[in-house]
Amino acid sequence: MIVTVTPNPALDLTWPVDRLTPGETHRVPAGAARAGGKGLNVARVLHQQGHPVMAVTTSGGLTGTELARDLAASALPHRLVPVAAATRRSAAIVDAATGEATILNEYGVNHSAAEWNELSDAVSASLPRASVLVGSGSLPEGADTEFFARLVTDARRLGLPTVIDTSGPGLLAAARAGAHILKPNGEELAAATGDNDPVRAARVLIAAGAGLVLVSLGAAGMLAVSAAEPSQHRRARLPRALCGNPTGAGDAAVAAAAFSLAVGETAPESILRRATAWSAAAVLMPVAGEISPRHPELAAELTVELIDVREETR
Amino acid sequence: MIVTVTPNPALDLTWPVDRLTPGETHRVPAGAARAGGKGLNVARVLHQQGHPVMAVTTSGGLTGTELARDLAASALPHRLVPVAAATRRSAAIVDAATGEATILNEYGVNHSAAEWNELSDAVSASLPRASVLVGSGSLPEGADTEFFARLVTDARRLGLPTVIDTSGPGLLAAARAGAHILKPNGEELAAATGDNDPVRAARVLIAAGAGLVLVSLGAAGMLAVSAAEPSQHRRARLPRALCGNPTGAGDAAVAAAAFSLAVGETAPESILRRATAWSAAAVLMPVAGEISPRHPELAAELTVELIDVREETR
Repeated sequence: MIVTVTPNPALDLTWPVDRLTPGETHRVPAGAARAGGKGLNVARVLHQQGHPVMAVTTSGGLTGTELARDLAASALPHRLVPVAAATRRSAAIVDAATGEATILNEYGVNHSAAEWNELSDAVSASLPRASVLVGSGSLPEGADTEFFARLVTDARRLGLPTVIDTSGPGLLAAARAGAHILKPNGEELAAATGDNDPVRAARVLIAAGAGLVLVSLGAAGMLAVSAAEPSQHRRARLPRALCGNPTGAGDAAVAAAAFSLAVGETAPESILRRATAWSAAAVLMPVAGEISPRHPELAAELTVELIDVREETR
Repeated sequence: MIVTVTPNPALDLTWPVDRLTPGETHRVPAGAARAGGKGLNVARVLHQQGHPVMAVTTSGGLTGTELARDLAASALPHRLVPVAAATRRSAAIVDAATGEATILNEYGVNHSAAEWNELSDAVSASLPRASVLVGSGSLPEGADTEFFARLVTDARRLGLPTVIDTSGPGLLAAARAGAHILKPNGEELAAATGDNDPVRAARVLIAAGAGLVLVSLGAAGMLAVSAAEPSQHRRARLPRALCGNPTGAGDAAVAAAAFSLAVGETAPESILRRATAWSAAAVLMPVAGEISPRHPELAAELTVELIDVREETR
């Protein structure tokens, strides 16, 4: 069973508009309200692939009740830690013609110390049946940036591998704690390390203690920088760009990385190939949390380049 | 007591942004969720002015529960008719620099026949203690456009005056039922009558059976066209434009018109002067449902022009 942890979920509202015009009034259909958050998307993808999962997250207030109802209506196994503050909202205003989304992400309200402890306890209670632990998403403002790092430490104590997808100081902390796989995107990696070169920046996380860093670069593909290959890295690309909805593509890559670890697929190239294929397969689906059944074809089509350090710096 | 009826309220969400950029992701503070709807704003203004009110509206689903909680937290007397469909949302994205608001108004889901009957019964139960009945706002898609007209008929049977602020076919129906005051804005009036000349269009509503038509024209002031003055109309204007938040200005005009009727102020000029002053005083306040204490000064400052039909057509 893969356990995903999402400390700061959101109630996702989606409104289609013909064209978003700032300053104007738009009449829109009643928006879909859906349980959102990166770790929930990771769990949905794994569940869709038939892999056993448990999504651990929080819910508070009436928005949390809506999130809980949506999760209850889905078949996704989950465990909700009740918190006092209302679950944040995230609104997507989607232009019907272009598919372009304008996003408003509310900041989350920080949990109390007791609530953080309850969340950790809920994760700990799931670990004895877990094969991999996934930590996903942002932390609320003011939260302890060591939260994911402590999960990594707890999991390592039980011999469990971890995949962490977060940003800011929490990313470096997870590396120092010895996370098996980190999955920042290019911007998050540059922001956390202060280095705009993704390979050098990934090596900073490896030097800190991470096992493998997957760097998602959007249409430019994905990099894999591994502790096991100190003088080489790999870059995966699809032969052509895909059109679709990139929301949730990073979460599908995390799901793939966790799946690889769960089935004992540990070679960096295998993990990179699966992560890139699932990520691309997510772009082909209209909503986050699902991947297209075409992912095996995509995995076969993509090219993985092995790049030598000396070759690159020449 | 003034009774306001709002069949299609909304849970109003407000998000401040530095600048709304279509296609971009914006981080925003947790939005304020407030009970919204034109009749609720009318009732709030009257309540703020110390006049007894009762706001009758509907609530459904978890958004309805949020609306109910906000109303319960306010001191506004209200009566909620439970409905099965979730109360719609209305989102305002407010540009912090300019104050410009981008609005997304969800369509409401229509009530069942039994729910409409319950709403009518709730209004009827309030009428014996009422001095004026106010019907405000849009109807959900598919609703019977005679709803406000029937309220007018019921109120007239009890000798109660009515103020109706709605749009579309419901506006004409309310006129035919003999509403005492109608308060469309210029666009609503043109859309309902097919005539872009506001005075001629208002005369269509008078000919159908309305007593007085107040036409709000934004910064251009307000017109009063009355059945009692068939060859004249009046136009009120402030000496200068006001800066502020126009949301709820029309609702303040409706509140003023209802207040006038409740205190026996029946001369068209008196009603027009109060409606224009309260509307302007609403622009000076940051949120809908309140008017500035400066409204008596504004009433004294504004000019009312009496325009003769022959003078105008000369």
